[in-house]
Amino acid sequence: MKLGLITSNEGKLREFRSELSRLGIEVARVDESCEEIQADTIEEVIQYCLKDLKSRGVGDVILDDSGLFIDSLEGFPGVYSSYVYKTLGCKGILKLMDKISDRRAHFSCCIGCILGDGQEIVVTEKVEGRIGTEERGDKGFGFDPIFIPEGDSRTFAEMSIEGKNPISHRGRAIRAFALALRKKVEV
Amino acid sequence: MKLGLITSNEGKLREFRSELSRLGIEVARVDESCEEIQADTIEEVIQYCLKDLKSRGVGDVILDDSGLFIDSLEGFPGVYSSYVYKTLGCKGILKLMDKISDRRAHFSCCIGCILGDGQEIVVTEKVEGRIGTEERGDKGFGFDPIFIPEGDSRTFAEMSIEGKNPISHRGRAIRAFALALRKKVEV
Repeated sequence: MKLGLITSNEGKLREFRSELSRLGIEVARVDESCEEIQADTIEEVIQYCLKDLKSRGVGDVILDDSGLFIDSLEGFPGVYSSYVYKTLGCKGILKLMDKISDRRAHFSCCIGCILGDGQEIVVTEKVEGRIGTEERGDKGFGFDPIFIPEGDSRTFAEMSIEGKNPISHRGRAIRAFALALRKKVEV
Repeated sequence: MKLGLITSNEGKLREFRSELSRLGIEVARVDESCEEIQADTIEEVIQYCLKDLKSRGVGDVILDDSGLFIDSLEGFPGVYSSYVYKTLGCKGILKLMDKISDRRAHFSCCIGCILGDGQEIVVTEKVEGRIGTEERGDKGFGFDPIFIPEGDSRTFAEMSIEGKNPISHRGRAIRAFALALRKKVEV
């Protein structure tokens, strides 16, 4: 089975491939896009995208939206994480978190898919953790260098894909997606 | 002439009324909404909203989108100013700007309108200024307490509506809108 991933992010493509190839699902980047709305949750963003894609007859595509939600910042940067990463970066988040002792945060990932027959799959998973006090590591992408998952002392950027995927929000979401997909179709 | 303003913000309603009533345009809040997309510019957000409203046959409505763009933060918070105000507030911006000497910023306002006959008006205006080092004043709303317009030493929140409207991004945009409206219809 082949699915087209709507993304411009190489890191995401690698993570999807790494998880789905073992299930015999081939993932290739597809030159497609959809409108992302301003919303409170990443699920709303994905649902609107799916509606947009479906109305244009696009099928056999997957897309995801992820966000870093920091408790003491009212969930900021949340749905706007990629914009905030581009403008403020990890340094901006560390500056905002300066002198704040409650460093709890989670990464959420929502995956949406429209199959060729119009069936939809939407799954969301998250990983709890905390914001570090400095950037560490050079793997991964986005806010990985400042996020330390629960039960670990390393940031996501200090882990290999193989180390990160079993616990990451996206890894979990991709596996939940694969399970849901199996129920719908014979992969 | 009557126009319905799509907003949940009392402050905006007051500013629109204050400028448009003198032209004989009555502004009332209207219970309507449209999808706001994630975009680089407020014009894109407004254009998409207008398309959405038009496709549903909504007319004689105005809406606006405003943003605070800070030079040294790559334009942050920009299109997402109201989300950032709700989560980080003025204090968050001041924290991000701590020890940054380049404090230049501008407020932009884009107004979009669909007339009853389907004609559209879109205007954008801005006001240059700088980010203060503390919150001052209790008038206005949003980031007004930390924005000092060029040529002044007071923040927007230290000015009355009558003092702020002649120089503010929204005041300018409302007047540009009124001019454009006059060319289209007999008000």
